Amino acid sequence: MQQLKQQVFEANMALPAHGLVTFTWGNVSGIDRTRGLVVIKPSGVPYETMTVQDMVVVDLFGKVIDGHYKPSSDTPTHLALYRAWPGIGGVVHTHSTYATAWAQASCAIPALGTTHADYFHGDIPCTRGLTPTEIRDEYEAHTGKVILETLGEANPLHCPGIVVQQHGPFTWGKDAAEAAHNAVVLEEVAHMAQLAIGINPGQQRIASALSDKHFSRKHGPDAYYGQGHTHAQRNICIYR
Amino acid sequence: MQQLKQQVFEANMALPAHGLVTFTWGNVSGIDRTRGLVVIKPSGVPYETMTVQDMVVVDLFGKVIDGHYKPSSDTPTHLALYRAWPGIGGVVHTHSTYATAWAQASCAIPALGTTHADYFHGDIPCTRGLTPTEIRDEYEAHTGKVILETLGEANPLHCPGIVVQQHGPFTWGKDAAEAAHNAVVLEEVAHMAQLAIGINPGQQRIASALSDKHFSRKHGPDAYYGQGHTHAQRNICIYR
Amino acid sequence: MQQLKQQVFEANMALPAHGLVTFTWGNVSGIDRTRGLVVIKPSGVPYETMTVQDMVVVDLFGKVIDGHYKPSSDTPTHLALYRAWPGIGGVVHTHSTYATAWAQASCAIPALGTTHADYFHGDIPCTRGLTPTEIRDEYEAHTGKVILETLGEANPLHCPGIVVQQHGPFTWGKDAAEAAHNAVVLEEVAHMAQLAIGINPGQQRIASALSDKHFSRKHGPDAYYGQGHTHAQRNICIYR
Amino acid sequence: MQQLKQQVFEANMALPAHGLVTFTWGNVSGIDRTRGLVVIKPSGVPYETMTVQDMVVVDLFGKVIDGHYKPSSDTPTHLALYRAWPGIGGVVHTHSTYATAWAQASCAIPALGTTHADYFHGDIPCTRGLTPTEIRDEYEAHTGKVILETLGEANPLHCPGIVVQQHGPFTWGKDAAEAAHNAVVLEEVAHMAQLAIGINPGQQRIASALSDKHFSRKHGPDAYYGQGHTHAQRNICIYR
Repeated sequence: MQQLKQQVFEANMALPAHGLVTFTWGNVSGIDRTRGLVVIKPSGVPYETMTVQDMVVVDLFGKVIDGHYKPSSDTPTHLALYRAWPGIGGVVHTHSTYATAWAQASCAIPALGTTHADYFHGDIPCTRGLTPTEIRDEYEAHTGKVILETLGEANPLHCPGIVVQQHGPFTWGKDAAEAAHNAVVLEEVAHMAQLAIGINPGQQRIASALSDKHFSRKHGPDAYYGQGHTHAQRNICIYR
Repeated sequence: MQQLKQQVFEANMALPAHGLVTFTWGNVSGIDRTRGLVVIKPSGVPYETMTVQDMVVVDLFGKVIDGHYKPSSDTPTHLALYRAWPGIGGVVHTHSTYATAWAQASCAIPALGTTHADYFHGDIPCTRGLTPTEIRDEYEAHTGKVILETLGEANPLHCPGIVVQQHGPFTWGKDAAEAAHNAVVLEEVAHMAQLAIGINPGQQRIASALSDKHFSRKHGPDAYYGQGHTHAQRNICIYR
Repeated sequence: MQQLKQQVFEANMALPAHGLVTFTWGNVSGIDRTRGLVVIKPSGVPYETMTVQDMVVVDLFGKVIDGHYKPSSDTPTHLALYRAWPGIGGVVHTHSTYATAWAQASCAIPALGTTHADYFHGDIPCTRGLTPTEIRDEYEAHTGKVILETLGEANPLHCPGIVVQQHGPFTWGKDAAEAAHNAVVLEEVAHMAQLAIGINPGQQRIASALSDKHFSRKHGPDAYYGQGHTHAQRNICIYR
Repeated sequence: MQQLKQQVFEANMALPAHGLVTFTWGNVSGIDRTRGLVVIKPSGVPYETMTVQDMVVVDLFGKVIDGHYKPSSDTPTHLALYRAWPGIGGVVHTHSTYATAWAQASCAIPALGTTHADYFHGDIPCTRGLTPTEIRDEYEAHTGKVILETLGEANPLHCPGIVVQQHGPFTWGKDAAEAAHNAVVLEEVAHMAQLAIGINPGQQRIASALSDKHFSRKHGPDAYYGQGHTHAQRNICIYR
């Protein structure tokens, strides 16, 4: 577990290094699939003083296995994603400025260019809002539930991030480092899209031939990009 | 008082560290409720050369008790808040870019997401403009008066900040450090809201269930959040 | 002259320190009124390697008196302002991002808040465009001419800056340091105004009582603020 | 070749130094016209650990002559430009935020001010989109083809950059350093234009007299600015 703790610690530290977090507003986890154990950031510990030994180990149902701190309050969201998606190895949550702005606008981030298409095959979806019942009990677990509901049958590695309505972004990847990498990409793509629709409010999405080309350039012939996913039709803003 | 001076000095230095001030455009104070004495930044002293011994001590009516500099010209605004609200221990004023932009737009910052709701229970209100009479005499004290008038019966710790119309933000908290923390939050929330209404001008406010959940997550069961405050109905822009 | 060279050098170095210049796109000058000599940045010398001895001394008609480099190509604009306004001691030109954006929009920067009013008594005007004839011959001198024409009878220290239409900002002050200070203020005020009219396109200008109060707070009873200047009526965008 | 490798390495390192790249999203090349050999960044190597010896040498048809890495995947685009334009010595591709936003908006960057006119004689054009056939086979070479098609008969040094529709910017220059310099200029000009059309959506382009003056100030009497190029009429957004 020491190696995974080190990886998760480093991925957590990448968030402030890339300007994605204010104070303690972010967390990264990684999973050891063999043991079914997740390493995650402790709740509310400042990045400036956090060490690798502060990482918390939990099982897939949230029981603390190791660590002297409480795990992140968002742990149930991370666990819901790990339980549903065997192909992912890391999860990130931040309140990064531009991605959160799209969440606050309740809008999917439209696929407008190749920077987007290099990582996300289609729009970056926005979840529906949670119901009052979902909010009152097991709020964080229900956050995971609406993420899963929104992605549906899509391959999560073809859409490695989402914005949760009026909340903020989550990203994932093969491991903690890739999930953090995707959090940086999502923030940059969110910024570019915000600017682009300001310049040209009637802009159309990128052509599928260009999207396919760029996604496959980065993700290789054995990716499932031919089948794609269908979330681009769900919950997208009529922003024009 | 040495300990309070140190706290207030450090909270002042947090403002440029977080990018909230240009030149000397900001000030932080803290109060010793037992003695009824307030420590505040001196007027116009650059942050680069300011030391803890430059902090000025005044009583609740502005009489200088200790210090070799004049206190901040905004001191009467700080004192008005301390006199009215026994629960607060620190006050901050800045001209931070995004919060000031909302003030210059004469608009309350709408509660659009959980980042906002983690700290502010409802919109961040915008005061009415001061009358010419209020401006000409005791301008800074009247600035305090309109802040108090806008919050009304609300718990100030449930709405730990405001934008003063066509002027700029004030924040407060249990102590100087928390007030400075809230100034950082207000600036970030102001930025996110400016972006979000640009992306989706017709966006609705966050649902009350979600707002309550997030505020209570951060502020616990013994906070008064059930009763809330009503300022969300006052002086809000029709920005869509 | 060594002291003035040092002041002008330091004011030039303040521009990149405050993020106002890309490459060599900016210049500061200062004047010795007794001798009628102006010290100005050399043309095209990078800030990274520039030293105080690279400063160029010219007389009020542009003749080089001292220095191993050519003076800034904008020297005739600086000199036009010094000749017309005996009260100023420093001039700055930059292509800082937000102020230049207002220039490129051919819009005066409306006085929307106290940050603006602390330094500028009324809108920051935008000049008319130069005619083809003014552009073809003595372009830089004509740039000075339209600045003077736009300010008219106003006290230049009550409006210590302007944007030249589809070009960029000029600022001035009692000396080179104050002119550079005002360049930082103009950029920040330009940013705040750009954001504020985005949030509320119908926003009104700050009330004159508040504008007068703030300008007089910073500029004292012996300033001429009672008479003001009238440029607020000239060449302002109908941006709402 | 060692000298050219050093120049290309330094021009590559200038991109992150000026904030133009996230991760490895950018590449610079330079050409030795005598030998017909091009030095270019290796594909996917992080800037933090890249050394001058990692640069790759290819001939004008993409055959690797020297180097232990694969060349940038964008190499065919660079080579298409070198083959068509004997006057250029360096090429840059980035995904810099503001220039990419204009590309994602499918809009030419209108010539709104002198900062633009100092480097670009007319609008910075946006290419047409590639056809599905052009995307599927030899995508990167076809990207070069549409750039050449868009510039047409124009002197490429009078328009040293372009945005490729829904992709991102390319710039060029007399050598690798100038091409990187122009990438910085293009990003800054893209930012200013985005702000300016937000402030004044109906703004007109800069007058030709002013554009000619500024371009000739920087590019001298032996430049071809009198004949100009005609791309300003092509593929420009109706953004007002």
